[in-house]
Amino acid sequence: MIDQIKDAHQALRTRVVRTPLLNFPALDALVGGRLYLKAENLQHTGSFKYRGALNHMRTLGGPDSPKSVLAYSSGNHAQGVAKAAKDAGLSATIVMPADAPQVKIDNTSSYGAEVVLYDRETESREAVAAALPQANEAYLIPPYDHPLTIAGQATAGMEVIEQLEGADLDQALICCGGGGLATGVTQALHDAYPGLQSYAVEPTGFDDFARSLARGERVSNASKSGSICDAIITPTPGELTFPLAQACNMLGVSVSDEEALDAVAYAAKKLRIILEPGGAVALAAALFGKIDLKGRSTLALLSGGNIDADLLAKALERPLPEEWQ
Amino acid sequence: MIDQIKDAHQALRTRVVRTPLLNFPALDALVGGRLYLKAENLQHTGSFKYRGALNHMRTLGGPDSPKSVLAYSSGNHAQGVAKAAKDAGLSATIVMPADAPQVKIDNTSSYGAEVVLYDRETESREAVAAALPQANEAYLIPPYDHPLTIAGQATAGMEVIEQLEGADLDQALICCGGGGLATGVTQALHDAYPGLQSYAVEPTGFDDFARSLARGERVSNASKSGSICDAIITPTPGELTFPLAQACNMLGVSVSDEEALDAVAYAAKKLRIILEPGGAVALAAALFGKIDLKGRSTLALLSGGNIDADLLAKALERPLPEEWQ
Repeated sequence: MIDQIKDAHQALRTRVVRTPLLNFPALDALVGGRLYLKAENLQHTGSFKYRGALNHMRTLGGPDSPKSVLAYSSGNHAQGVAKAAKDAGLSATIVMPADAPQVKIDNTSSYGAEVVLYDRETESREAVAAALPQANEAYLIPPYDHPLTIAGQATAGMEVIEQLEGADLDQALICCGGGGLATGVTQALHDAYPGLQSYAVEPTGFDDFARSLARGERVSNASKSGSICDAIITPTPGELTFPLAQACNMLGVSVSDEEALDAVAYAAKKLRIILEPGGAVALAAALFGKIDLKGRSTLALLSGGNIDADLLAKALERPLPEEWQ
Repeated sequence: MIDQIKDAHQALRTRVVRTPLLNFPALDALVGGRLYLKAENLQHTGSFKYRGALNHMRTLGGPDSPKSVLAYSSGNHAQGVAKAAKDAGLSATIVMPADAPQVKIDNTSSYGAEVVLYDRETESREAVAAALPQANEAYLIPPYDHPLTIAGQATAGMEVIEQLEGADLDQALICCGGGGLATGVTQALHDAYPGLQSYAVEPTGFDDFARSLARGERVSNASKSGSICDAIITPTPGELTFPLAQACNMLGVSVSDEEALDAVAYAAKKLRIILEPGGAVALAAALFGKIDLKGRSTLALLSGGNIDADLLAKALERPLPEEWQ
C-alpha cells in the first residue's frame, strides 16, 4: 500500500493544493502540547476528497476507458469527484442524500455534475446508483473502499511528513467516516513515524470504527442519520479500510455534535478558519481532551470546510467555554 | 532600513507565527494570474500588528527600562501590543476608539491590558493618551511611524520571500492605514524583487496615501470615521512612512466598503478563511480588478481577521457576484 501511496503522491503533487500545516501557539498552550493542524478545508472543493477522486482519474482517459463517472456521497466526495471529472473532461453523475447541506449540493452542480437525490432513511445509495441508466457504462468512484481512493487521500499524510521536516510526531487524530482518509493517512505517517498512535475520530452514535476495532469485527451503527457531521456518518467500516485500521493498531474516539460545533466556533473565532462540523471532529477531540496531548506532538486533520452559512452563523453565536478564551 | 528589517526577521523568527502563503488555483483562474495570499489573519492576535509590537519589546526589559507600555489603536495594534507586553511581563494601557469592533476591545482586555476608550470624532487619541497619569513613565509603541514598528511588520515580507523559494513576483497589494505594513513589506520585497510594483490599498474616502503619492505631499482625509475598514482609516500618511512609500515608488488603489465586504464573503465561502473588512481590501482589489493581474504573479497581503460575529454573519448572507461562483 505504501508504494501506491508514494506513487499517488508523486502523480498528484502539482495538481492538488499543498495545504498548510498550521500551528497556533495559543492553541498549543491550551492543550499543553504541540498540535499541528493539516488544513484540508483549504483543498480544492473544500475537502480532502478531491485527492482520492483525482487519483482515480489517472486510470481513465484512454480511448477505451469510460467517458463518465458515477459516485454516491453525502457531499464532499461528490464535490471532489465532480471537479476531478470536470478537470479530466468526463461527465459525472452524483447520487446525494436529499438532506445534504445545500452548499454541497450547489457546489457539486456548479462543477457540471448531474446530481440525483435520495432519501437517506428509506433508500440505499448504492441501489439508487445502480438503478440509473448510466450506471452500466460509468466508472464508479468509491468514496473510501478502494485502494486508489485510500492512496489518494493518503497524499495529505505524505505532505505532513514533508512539512514537519523531521520534527517529532507522536499521535494523530483523523476524522473517520468510511475510513479512507484515516487509514490512508495513518499508513503514510507510519512510513516516517512507525511508532505513531493514530485515532479515528467519529461522531457519538456513529462510532462504528471504534466499536469494530474494540470487538475485532465490523459492526454497524444503529442509525443512518441524525448527526450534523454529515460528512462522516457511514453505516459500517469498509471491507478494505477496516483490516487496514487493524493493521495500523488504530483506536477510536468520538465527539458529540455539541463538541463538534464548539470546535467549529473555536476555529472561526480563534483560528480564523472555517470548518464544517464533520471536518472539525479531530480538533474537537483535541480541545475536549479525548486523548492525552500533554507534552506530545499531535496531528489533527481538519478534513473539510463546506458548511452552510446559516449553520456557521449559528456556531458563531455560541459562547466559547471560558477556558478557551 | 533593510538591515533593521533583516535584524528583526532573525530576532522574531521563532516568536511570530510563520503564516502560510496560500494559493488557490480557482482564484488564480478567476483573476487570470498567479495570486499569493499571505495569511496574517492567522498571526498571533489575528493580525500582523503583533510583529511590530514584539519588535519594540526587544528594546525593553533592561533594569532601567520602562515597566509599562502605552499604545493608541483602532484595535489590531491594540491586541498586538497587549499580547507582546504580556509576553514580556510588562503592563499595557491601550487607548481605543469607542466604536472599535467589540471583539477587538474584548481581545485586548483578555491579554490583560487596561483599555481606555475615546470618541473618534471629537477627541484626538494622541491627546487622550498624553493625558493619562501613566503616560509619562510608559513606553509608547507607535502604530506605524517608527522604524522598529515598520521593521517588525516587514518581517511578513521576509517570510514571503522565503516561502516563494525563488518564484517570480511582479507586484504586491498591501492594505494601508498609516503605512507601516505597506512600506515595510515593500522594502523587504524589493530586496529580492527590485522591480516589483507595490500598491497601497485603502478604503474609498480614506485614500490619503494614494492622493499624497499622486500629489507628492502628505494630504489628509476629509473624514475620521465612516468605513467598516476600521483597521486602516488613519487621517494622513506618516512622517516616516510617506517618504518610504515615495522611495519605493508605491502607487495607491482604493476599494469601497461594499467591495471589502464582498471580499470577506468570498474568503469565507470560497477560501474558507476569515478576514475582517480592513484585512480583506487587498483581496478585494484583486477580485475587482483594481490593477491588472493577467499573466502576472501578485501578492495580496491579508492583514487581519478580527471581525465581529454579527458582521461576519451579515457578510455570509451576501450573494457572491455570479462570475465568482
